Amino acid sequence: MARRLQDELAAFFFEYDTPRMVLVRNKKVGVVFRLIQLVVLAYVIGWVFVYEKGYQTSSGLISSVSVKLKGLAVTQLPDLGSQVWDVADYVFPAQGDSSFVVMTNFIATPQQAQGYCAEHPEGGTCRDDSGCTPGKAERKAQGIRTGKCVAFNDTVQTCEIFGWCPVEVDDNVPRPALLREAENFTLFIKNSISFPRFKVNRCNLVEEVTTAYMKTCLYHKTLHPLCPIFKLGYVVQESGLNFSSLAEKGGVVGITIDWNCDLDWHVQHCKPIYEFHGLYEEKNLSPGFNFRFARHFVENGTNYRHLFKVFGIRFDILVDGKAGKFDIIPTMTTIGSGIGIFGVGERDPTVTSSTLGLQENMKTS
Amino acid sequence: MARRLQDELAAFFFEYDTPRMVLVRNKKVGVVFRLIQLVVLAYVIGWVFVYEKGYQTSSGLISSVSVKLKGLAVTQLPDLGSQVWDVADYVFPAQGDSSFVVMTNFIATPQQAQGYCAEHPEGGTCRDDSGCTPGKAERKAQGIRTGKCVAFNDTVQTCEIFGWCPVEVDDNVPRPALLREAENFTLFIKNSISFPRFKVNRCNLVEEVTTAYMKTCLYHKTLHPLCPIFKLGYVVQESGLNFSSLAEKGGVVGITIDWNCDLDWHVQHCKPIYEFHGLYEEKNLSPGFNFRFARHFVENGTNYRHLFKVFGIRFDILVDGKAGKFDIIPTMTTIGSGIGIFGVGERDPTVTSSTLGLQENMKTS
Amino acid sequence: MARRLQDELAAFFFEYDTPRMVLVRNKKVGVVFRLIQLVVLAYVIGWVFVYEKGYQTSSGLISSVSVKLKGLAVTQLPDLGSQVWDVADYVFPAQGDSSFVVMTNFIATPQQAQGYCAEHPEGGTCRDDSGCTPGKAERKAQGIRTGKCVAFNDTVQTCEIFGWCPVEVDDNVPRPALLREAENFTLFIKNSISFPRFKVNRCNLVEEVTTAYMKTCLYHKTLHPLCPIFKLGYVVQESGLNFSSLAEKGGVVGITIDWNCDLDWHVQHCKPIYEFHGLYEEKNLSPGFNFRFARHFVENGTNYRHLFKVFGIRFDILVDGKAGKFDIIPTMTTIGSGIGIFGVGERDPTVTSSTLGLQENMKTS
Repeated sequence: MARRLQDELAAFFFEYDTPRMVLVRNKKVGVVFRLIQLVVLAYVIGWVFVYEKGYQTSSGLISSVSVKLKGLAVTQLPDLGSQVWDVADYVFPAQGDSSFVVMTNFIATPQQAQGYCAEHPEGGTCRDDSGCTPGKAERKAQGIRTGKCVAFNDTVQTCEIFGWCPVEVDDNVPRPALLREAENFTLFIKNSISFPRFKVNRCNLVEEVTTAYMKTCLYHKTLHPLCPIFKLGYVVQESGLNFSSLAEKGGVVGITIDWNCDLDWHVQHCKPIYEFHGLYEEKNLSPGFNFRFARHFVENGTNYRHLFKVFGIRFDILVDGKAGKFDIIPTMTTIGSGIGIFGVGERDPTVTSSTLGLQENMKTS
Repeated sequence: MARRLQDELAAFFFEYDTPRMVLVRNKKVGVVFRLIQLVVLAYVIGWVFVYEKGYQTSSGLISSVSVKLKGLAVTQLPDLGSQVWDVADYVFPAQGDSSFVVMTNFIATPQQAQGYCAEHPEGGTCRDDSGCTPGKAERKAQGIRTGKCVAFNDTVQTCEIFGWCPVEVDDNVPRPALLREAENFTLFIKNSISFPRFKVNRCNLVEEVTTAYMKTCLYHKTLHPLCPIFKLGYVVQESGLNFSSLAEKGGVVGITIDWNCDLDWHVQHCKPIYEFHGLYEEKNLSPGFNFRFARHFVENGTNYRHLFKVFGIRFDILVDGKAGKFDIIPTMTTIGSGIGIFGVGERDPTVTSSTLGLQENMKTS
Repeated sequence: MARRLQDELAAFFFEYDTPRMVLVRNKKVGVVFRLIQLVVLAYVIGWVFVYEKGYQTSSGLISSVSVKLKGLAVTQLPDLGSQVWDVADYVFPAQGDSSFVVMTNFIATPQQAQGYCAEHPEGGTCRDDSGCTPGKAERKAQGIRTGKCVAFNDTVQTCEIFGWCPVEVDDNVPRPALLREAENFTLFIKNSISFPRFKVNRCNLVEEVTTAYMKTCLYHKTLHPLCPIFKLGYVVQESGLNFSSLAEKGGVVGITIDWNCDLDWHVQHCKPIYEFHGLYEEKNLSPGFNFRFARHFVENGTNYRHLFKVFGIRFDILVDGKAGKFDIIPTMTTIGSGIGIFGVGERDPTVTSSTLGLQENMKTS
């Protein structure tokens, strides 16, 4: 028995199968065969490895962005007089998020208080009270109808409402935009990223960006591609939009910071690429970007608010990118499948022995 | 010598090894063999290619969302009187981010000023000054203790604090919610995405959504699955939550916009799918969602604030999805590994010659 | 004819090629051969499967975060007197987003109104009006120059500007930070995630976090790694920064919530891991984090504002992670390529018959 086992073990270790090979001397076939191997090899090495970096694993990134704006604008308004707007006035939100709005135009409705007044004609006109169902609120309404029909102005009668009075009249948007100086505002972007998988951290203030450089530089696609300070006008222009029209109606501009890092090289080569593209402008559905906000205050115990319909440019800073680094798994997988294909080359019927009449016919019942 | 080299080259180019094949005629084995090949083929083609789209690379997306709300609510409060709330009052933040809060309920503490007053009993009661350590601040405290023990009301004594006075009393949340009309507010979502890898841009205002359609439509899962205007009540209901209870205590609702695009087809087929799900409601740990904010104002040189404890529904718009497009690499890899497995079929011991006694025994020392 | 076809079908089904195998008995070669196979096997099973989980598909996550802060701070300022700051005062934005700022220090410029005053010397001094070009605005300017040269104080003359007056003087930042008590503020994080691909939802209030536990617990790396309540001081310390210096100049701290879930196990094992890292501190370029915001109010019909230059700690909560689950495709691919490599082992020239002189030389013209 033991003997028997021993034999079997020996058999397992010292014996093995191998296909009985045939050495074929045949110019035509030989060359075809080598060519196929060559093609496969070229594909595996050239394409998969060099071009597609098939030997790397990639990692997504997590990112943190903060921004800071600089600049002043002056507005001349009949009711508000001349006024200077600084960062604290025209940026929403104040704390400098990656998505922020720069006010470029607005319709102000000062000194609103809760009370009764005539609705805006847009909400529908009326001849007498019968036209005003109490409590009803149109989609466009600025208040709840009381049921009375009152004079909005000398010519038009509208339903009386209870709400913030006087009502906002946003019929004609100021043009040119009131804060068109926004074109010269500067935007400073700080973006720090990390590739959690590779434990690599980077900041868009890369080695080339020195303190001295930052004092003077202004981003330019080709001249200063790494300067983190942007002129809003330039950003909008690069995004393919027209600033003055954008400033009037508002809009959304995307700033993409693209990190594409090959970490097989020194991390210093891992640099951001800034790109700008206008959003939503594919179609003319609800163009522009605007929102309403109010400054509340109290006088003699009464709550008042200044209502602003703000038209502004919203900047969305989208950080994207990935890092690649050599890793054994994808390498093996690629090689493996490469060989799999290689196998085809070898087992390709056009060049295997079967077509060369090397087979022995044999019958097994 | 040269001759020798020549020979070797010739050998390399014109000679090659190929396994010596054997043609076996055997019904049983033959069929088994074909079956195995069939299965592998079925798997590679059917599953990997057709079902799992193994021939595509996929790309993540970057996205930008902006929202706009419409609607009015009226509140009747003893101290504040009847009041109308519009967008500028009930949306946080004002500028319409992808994550925003709609105020549905609140506890107002008007006319707070810095000063001395009795702490809220929740912060602990006291019998005499000895019970109040000066400077100490409980976790729930609304101010810094002065060390005195004063009357909070006729029945209860609490420590005196320095802070915003009078203190906020948020014992009982108004029910039903004060701004329950929020149920009928409409939410308009603009979402523009791009698949950077494929340089494809899309907006949720797809071809089907015309200006005329948008004026009237209201999103419905089955009837209007592409309308970008949502009734808050419907969204909450679809998310599986109860609006009125949510409105009271507040909560978080996720709106997922899912882009799943097969870019081997025309980009027009790339459409968003909206889904709604209530968040955090798995457990009863700290249910609801609320935050405090203040409206600051000055009267006669004194700084005052209206403090609001806001209960609201926070909507988080999460954009997700990926695009797939034919690419040579995954295709090759898939085929390659497919063949690798194919190889198994061929090299499967149960059908190889070894079991058919086709081997020649041979000894090499 | 039919007969012929039948034959061919039969041939196709009942005949097949198989390499003619050779059974080799050779200790050296046999062992080498087995070893190679062993290595490949070890790699495929050990590394690819066990370590790299090559049999799983992974899915990214979508996440929603909301935060709540608790704590009080007192400031003593010559012009503002002693003042208590609570959540409604020191958190931006109020509604508790995943990225928020806690004010730790500030420079207040109360009672600003639009008017004429002397510019801050930082904007440049002057000897006479010739030094002040009207309308010109320096990058640092706080208003538009009128062209006059006036006295800023007894010693310095600067250009007169039109803007918010009096101008902000932010020369020396208060130290120590005014709201240094922020160190003891507590931060409560609610984070709910979902793996859309696997339809799995989780919340950072996992099973271990009971209501009772949450009342008392405070996050600690090792002692309470799952407690969702954080002391700001601890977070900053763990991020490797110094709180008091950070509080003065402000800065950015990243809180990473890492979900790494193997869904082949019960979902209960899917728990968050919190990590903290200071951002931007790699270089001394524009250190700190600050922004300006204003509290607007009206007195006797004049618009005033309190301007605050806020130095604060910005917390960015970044949720990251992925889930893995068994899937047939990657498994097959891995096996497939594994076999591909296996194939090498078998076809390795050092052990194939070619080197064992098992070839038959054969000429085909």
